[in-house]
Order: sequence, then structure tokens, then C-alpha cells
Amino acid sequence: MRVRIALEEKGVHYEYTEQDLRNKSHLLLQMNPVYKKVPVLIHNGKPICESLIAAEYVDEVWKNKSRLLSPHPYKRAQSRFWADFADKKVYRSGRKTEMEKGEEKEAAKNDFIESLKLLEGELGDEPYFEGDKLGYVDVALIPFYGWFHGYETFGNFSIVEECPKLIAWCKRCMQKESVSKSLADP
Amino acid sequence: MRVRIALEEKGVHYEYTEQDLRNKSHLLLQMNPVYKKVPVLIHNGKPICESLIAAEYVDEVWKNKSRLLSPHPYKRAQSRFWADFADKKVYRSGRKTEMEKGEEKEAAKNDFIESLKLLEGELGDEPYFEGDKLGYVDVALIPFYGWFHGYETFGNFSIVEECPKLIAWCKRCMQKESVSKSLADP
Repeated sequence: MRVRIALEEKGVHYEYTEQDLRNKSHLLLQMNPVYKKVPVLIHNGKPICESLIAAEYVDEVWKNKSRLLSPHPYKRAQSRFWADFADKKVYRSGRKTEMEKGEEKEAAKNDFIESLKLLEGELGDEPYFEGDKLGYVDVALIPFYGWFHGYETFGNFSIVEECPKLIAWCKRCMQKESVSKSLADP
Repeated sequence: MRVRIALEEKGVHYEYTEQDLRNKSHLLLQMNPVYKKVPVLIHNGKPICESLIAAEYVDEVWKNKSRLLSPHPYKRAQSRFWADFADKKVYRSGRKTEMEKGEEKEAAKNDFIESLKLLEGELGDEPYFEGDKLGYVDVALIPFYGWFHGYETFGNFSIVEECPKLIAWCKRCMQKESVSKSLADP
């Protein structure tokens, strides 16, 4: 989803192919021999694996279009930090909220909410993480919105009650066609 | 160690302060409130956390010196992929080789060796991962060399027997003062 949003933001035409992860294609195994995972962006016949790396690649190749990452080194580092945080904290605690039971589920839920609150603090009163337009952290984080319903259902809690500003940001992002057409149906 | 090597490669003067991780300083907690971890690079009074992000920041700020990352988007993406691989695979399996017991230790050891062999394949016959000079993947990976003796001792295996070319690369890196003065004594 991240890679698709990035490509859409740049107005790049691409072909999207889903994978049967129980019966991985020869192409996937050939293009991502290390992790054998989706997504893989294939450009000029060459693979770019790992979604954050592929999104940054898209930003660098089509650099004349609106930039996902700021040109300023400090802002770039901050954006990479929060995108990485999404992978390290939001992904893991969200998944555990769905998969674990008992005390571990509760601990995961607390971690998950704490992570979202940190992100909400980082967003502040800006419309997007990069300021007035959709950028790298937005691209990194918004795909999780498609899983919120699952987290809430399995975790028995309400994200909008905990993080109303973050949910407002989700809805703002969803108004962008680049996002709404790329996200999976919850 | 990564950040120090990057700073040394750029010829940047810096002050290095160690932390007592059982009694973290106010400065550390203030500069890295999210993870409360080292390293933190503080530049112009502002923190950059997470070692790979800080190394890339150093590369972008002091960009007139020899570049750690190639200017070519595809090469940059590949370098980021392998640096991330070092964090995801080498770090975790190496640590488990030291910490786990029995079957889990054996599995971790196999993962660790497999990871190093993948890296050795990526290195190929080049002197460094970026080609003829030390670059981003080298900076990301070489600090693990300081832990090899520990992995070998706890895991009861020989890395040089498994990956002779990678060990030759380690020794090549250690001939650089930027590396040898930054790595911890095994």
C-alpha cells in the first residue's frame, strides 16, 4: 500500500499484481530471494524490496514531482525516524493486539495506544506529518488505518476515543485518491 | 559505532559521551524520549536517533565529503536494503546465538551464518560493499565484527571457516582508522 500511494502521488503508471502467499510465484521468489515477501517494486526489470525503501526510491527517481521527503537533512532524518517507528512499534503492537490473549493482549494494546499517541503528538496541529502536504511519514503510516477496525474488534477498544486527532488525520488522508484507491478494505 | 565511523569518514570533530544504561542521564532521556536508547547524535542542539538514520544524516549534512551512499537511486535503495538486513537478520540471529540454548541456539546459529553468507554474496569480489571505497553498508555492518568473538565463543563455531571473504572484508575495514578507532574491543 505504501508503494502504491507513493507511485500514485507521483502520477506514475504501474501494474499491480497480487500474490498468493501460500503459493508464491516464481517471479516473487526471483525478485525477493532474501525475504520472499511482498511488496516488491520492479522498475527497469530490477527489484526494490521493503516498502519504506521502495517508497523512498520512488521519491528519488521521480524527484521532479512533489517530494515525499523534505530536502532538509534534519527533517528527512525525523521523517525516517517516524516511518521506522511505524514499523517497529505500530506494526508489532497492533499485530499482537489481534493475535495475543490475556495479559499479553492488554500489554500490546497499551503499547499500541501509546505509540499512536506519540504519533499524534508528532503530528501536532498540522494537516499532515510533513506539514501542509502528504509526505513520507503519511505514506508510511496511513496503511495501518485499514487494520484499525481489526485491532479495535480483537482488542475491544476504540482508537478514535484515544486519539481523535490521529483519526481526523486518517480521514484527511483518505480524501486523497492516492490513498483511498491504494488502501485495502478494512 | 556506526555514527562514529560516519563522522570519522567525513572528518567531523565530535564529542563522544558514554552512557550508564542502568542510570540513564537526563540528557539521554531528553534527547531520545521515544526509545531512551543510545546512540543519539546531537547536532545544532537537536537529536538524531537510530544509528542508520544518524549515519545517513551525517552523509547528507556533510555531503561535500566522500559520499557513503551512491547518488544513484537504485544503488541507494540496495544499500538501504542491506543495511536494514544487518539490523533485521544479523543483529537478531547473532544475539540469539549468544543468549539462547539448545535447538533455538542451533537455529539462530544457522540463521546467522546464512545471513553472513548472503552478505558475502552481495559483497562479491569488491573490496567494500559500495565498491572501491567504504560506504553505507560497510558502516552498517562492520560494528558487528566486534561481536564475532562473542558469537563464536557462545555458539561454538568459526565464522572465518564459513565466510572467509567476509572476514577478509572485516580486516580490510579495520585497516581504516575511522573503523579501528570506533569499534569496541571484542
